[in-house]
Amino acid sequence: QAAEREPSARAPPLLTDLYQFTMAYAYWRAGRHQEPAVFELFFRDNPFGGGFSLFAGLHDCLLFLRSFRFTDEDVEFLRSVLPPATDPAFFQFLRGLDCSGVTLRSVPEGTVVFPKVCVFQPCLKVCLQPVSAASLVISLVCSNAARFRLAAGPRRKLLEMGLRRAQGPDGGLTASRYTHIGGFDLTSNVQAGFLFGIPVAGTMAHSYVTSFTSLEEVWPQTLVAVSGDPDPVDIISLTKGWLSRVCELLGAEPGKIREGELAAFLSYAISYPQNFLPVIDSYSVGCSGLLNFCAVALALCELGYRPVGVRLDSGDLCRQSVDVRRVFRLCSEHFSISAFDSLIIVGTNNISEQSMAELNKKENQIDVVGVGTHLVTCTKQPSLGCVYKLVEVRGRPRMKISEDPQKSTVPGRKSVYRLLDADGHPFLDLACLAVESPPEAGVSLRCFPLGCDDSPVSVTPAQATCLRQDVFTKGQVRRDRLTT
Amino acid sequence: QAAEREPSARAPPLLTDLYQFTMAYAYWRAGRHQEPAVFELFFRDNPFGGGFSLFAGLHDCLLFLRSFRFTDEDVEFLRSVLPPATDPAFFQFLRGLDCSGVTLRSVPEGTVVFPKVCVFQPCLKVCLQPVSAASLVISLVCSNAARFRLAAGPRRKLLEMGLRRAQGPDGGLTASRYTHIGGFDLTSNVQAGFLFGIPVAGTMAHSYVTSFTSLEEVWPQTLVAVSGDPDPVDIISLTKGWLSRVCELLGAEPGKIREGELAAFLSYAISYPQNFLPVIDSYSVGCSGLLNFCAVALALCELGYRPVGVRLDSGDLCRQSVDVRRVFRLCSEHFSISAFDSLIIVGTNNISEQSMAELNKKENQIDVVGVGTHLVTCTKQPSLGCVYKLVEVRGRPRMKISEDPQKSTVPGRKSVYRLLDADGHPFLDLACLAVESPPEAGVSLRCFPLGCDDSPVSVTPAQATCLRQDVFTKGQVRRDRLTT
Repeated sequence: QAAEREPSARAPPLLTDLYQFTMAYAYWRAGRHQEPAVFELFFRDNPFGGGFSLFAGLHDCLLFLRSFRFTDEDVEFLRSVLPPATDPAFFQFLRGLDCSGVTLRSVPEGTVVFPKVCVFQPCLKVCLQPVSAASLVISLVCSNAARFRLAAGPRRKLLEMGLRRAQGPDGGLTASRYTHIGGFDLTSNVQAGFLFGIPVAGTMAHSYVTSFTSLEEVWPQTLVAVSGDPDPVDIISLTKGWLSRVCELLGAEPGKIREGELAAFLSYAISYPQNFLPVIDSYSVGCSGLLNFCAVALALCELGYRPVGVRLDSGDLCRQSVDVRRVFRLCSEHFSISAFDSLIIVGTNNISEQSMAELNKKENQIDVVGVGTHLVTCTKQPSLGCVYKLVEVRGRPRMKISEDPQKSTVPGRKSVYRLLDADGHPFLDLACLAVESPPEAGVSLRCFPLGCDDSPVSVTPAQATCLRQDVFTKGQVRRDRLTT
Repeated sequence: QAAEREPSARAPPLLTDLYQFTMAYAYWRAGRHQEPAVFELFFRDNPFGGGFSLFAGLHDCLLFLRSFRFTDEDVEFLRSVLPPATDPAFFQFLRGLDCSGVTLRSVPEGTVVFPKVCVFQPCLKVCLQPVSAASLVISLVCSNAARFRLAAGPRRKLLEMGLRRAQGPDGGLTASRYTHIGGFDLTSNVQAGFLFGIPVAGTMAHSYVTSFTSLEEVWPQTLVAVSGDPDPVDIISLTKGWLSRVCELLGAEPGKIREGELAAFLSYAISYPQNFLPVIDSYSVGCSGLLNFCAVALALCELGYRPVGVRLDSGDLCRQSVDVRRVFRLCSEHFSISAFDSLIIVGTNNISEQSMAELNKKENQIDVVGVGTHLVTCTKQPSLGCVYKLVEVRGRPRMKISEDPQKSTVPGRKSVYRLLDADGHPFLDLACLAVESPPEAGVSLRCFPLGCDDSPVSVTPAQATCLRQDVFTKGQVRRDRLTT
């Protein structure tokens, strides 16, 4: 993966709820604005009915904290929306505010985390409530990506292509970044490649294929072989010859083959002879697209190039991929073109986590799966109940009691330890008050696992690690602590 | 509504799928890059099983088109991801590309639109495919907002507060903008107020309430009356007196009242005596929050201020709102404080479209409803099957045929007319080829309504309007045509 560029923070300081400012003013007015406070962020339940979540969004939080500053224009706008009675000195105070007094303890980006355990803990002055970096924590789409990864198995490559279905432009960028952390190999989103170094992929849309109608539109009509003869070869004649042989081999009807599709494939192949991977279902895979692909790919092989493969975007992907693979093997054997044994088949057609899981049960020959809508919009559960609560002010624990018992909070600043067994496998995340002594390797301790009624159990960790790290202190990002 | 600021485009030109660039190169290589092409965008089905959609996203599209330009850095990045064989002259060409050759016909932002009718029609050179402004069309969240608006009825005010549940920072901004177009009155998102002039609202979170423990934390402890005596009044003593009277009136137990909550309310009221609207469920609405509110609000009234109301954020909002209103009326009558008759009750607790509709069936006293998660993530249907297809190249109609019949497209550039009856009500959207003559008022025409098998019907419009307008021509935004 390429190094990441240093983008500017994507969240301006006004991107927060108005009440953060009204509260900040009330604290300031009461002279309490420099009091230290601790907030904790946790999830109530794992998404998608699953057994884990992946923590993500830290990168954006840190950019936000580092660059947090109100401009004159920001402050003027706040003056216009806060009540007229607001003391003008408060706006002066805002103008000078930054995050040099914030300490953030967080689990690294991409950590497997569990419900009700605090994963993200900012310590700040109460006046800094507008710094609601917590709204940048995005674990849902990352966890969703991890589930697609598990469903796909380790062999298959996964391509994220959700840009056009995400919530607005930046929703798409966020999704590309966090699905990559969640286990996707590639993205179609060029800006995500530019900003984050994620490998980008993609070749052609149906519109490219349907924009051609005849071979007369192909230009140039020649291609130079990879090695040897410097004279350009008439690739159209060469391909037509291969098309006849392919039709004969497969017993196909030449009359059903779309000339526009062949022209589109040829035109693309001439531009990118080493990167030929067309979408072959614009008309009919079996009667046209596959035959046209084979003809162009065989012509490329004859000139020493290696075609890459095909994309299927509609219909029964499994069945079609098996048919396509069978034709590739036939061509490889019949024409002795071994490059046809390593062609890849990309499948993209409204893939959900469920249809991904079914791919593994049905016979298929799909090497790369592209996922869009269901991945980035998290169709199965489009939001995660993320909770961000005040737990301590001036060193004193604070609690929220609620008419909904599950909305009550556990007071006090917590430490979280991940306990490992003798094989190095984690078996328990232990939350205790920060003032309690940490668990020790080899020493038995009593704890109360959530969901196991109220009786304590004794466990002896072979090893205990601090789950969270200081990732931001004194206005600086701790670069060494950011990812797992 | 305040005038909008002129934000820079929120989508950089690289925020598109890689295949847009590989195709653009292949067109350029074939010398076809200046050929005119027409794309059309439509939805296949209305979202949420409903009967309409609202069109939205045009504003972002136009900003994008207007500022579309590749920087040197963009072009260098493209050079690094496109195959090495790509002709360097292509990158020179990209560097000079802009949207001066694009014409966009679109329905105005906020128009009610229906499935399968093209609402957005860019005419461009084929090389401009990277200009995928269509990915900025966001109708789902806008349509969702309109459904909440319909469910809420015209009386109730609606507050959008989805920032922390949206897809990343800009997902939140997008949602604030388009829910406002869809009928929401207010947003909690300050940046949306700043950029788009949407009225912002909000007062305090539970963390503010729970951060106080005793009346000693209240500072200053005095407030000056609105008119008359310039001497500051001891508001704490005044409120304590009112609290005793309220407890007596309601037969409440003073021992259950949380002093920290009272301190928080007082502290806020001293800062914002004309904007007092606390959240009253941090501990118990009936045993503490409501009593504390009444005491502080009565003290404010005594000093000539007008408290605004309360927010409920948990439990049965309908039942609680009725109880709260009853107490307000009791106070109004018993203490002769008429300001208590116009207090507002804000309800915010995971409101869905369904629970909004149920509000209208159950007795309740909620004046303002705040909606977050279900609004911005569109829980009921988190994506809209938006289709963007090539329909014409060089004046010749193009079609995509598919193994999925519903994925086939209707070829040719279409015009769309909205037909109105004699009362001025729209009754049919008519799509025909642009080359066909337009419908005329009072003249009968034959058409084939979708879903009514294949038999034609005759209709006579009293009026026919062009549904789409030229909103972008020659690199310029047509400002007069943007909204309904």
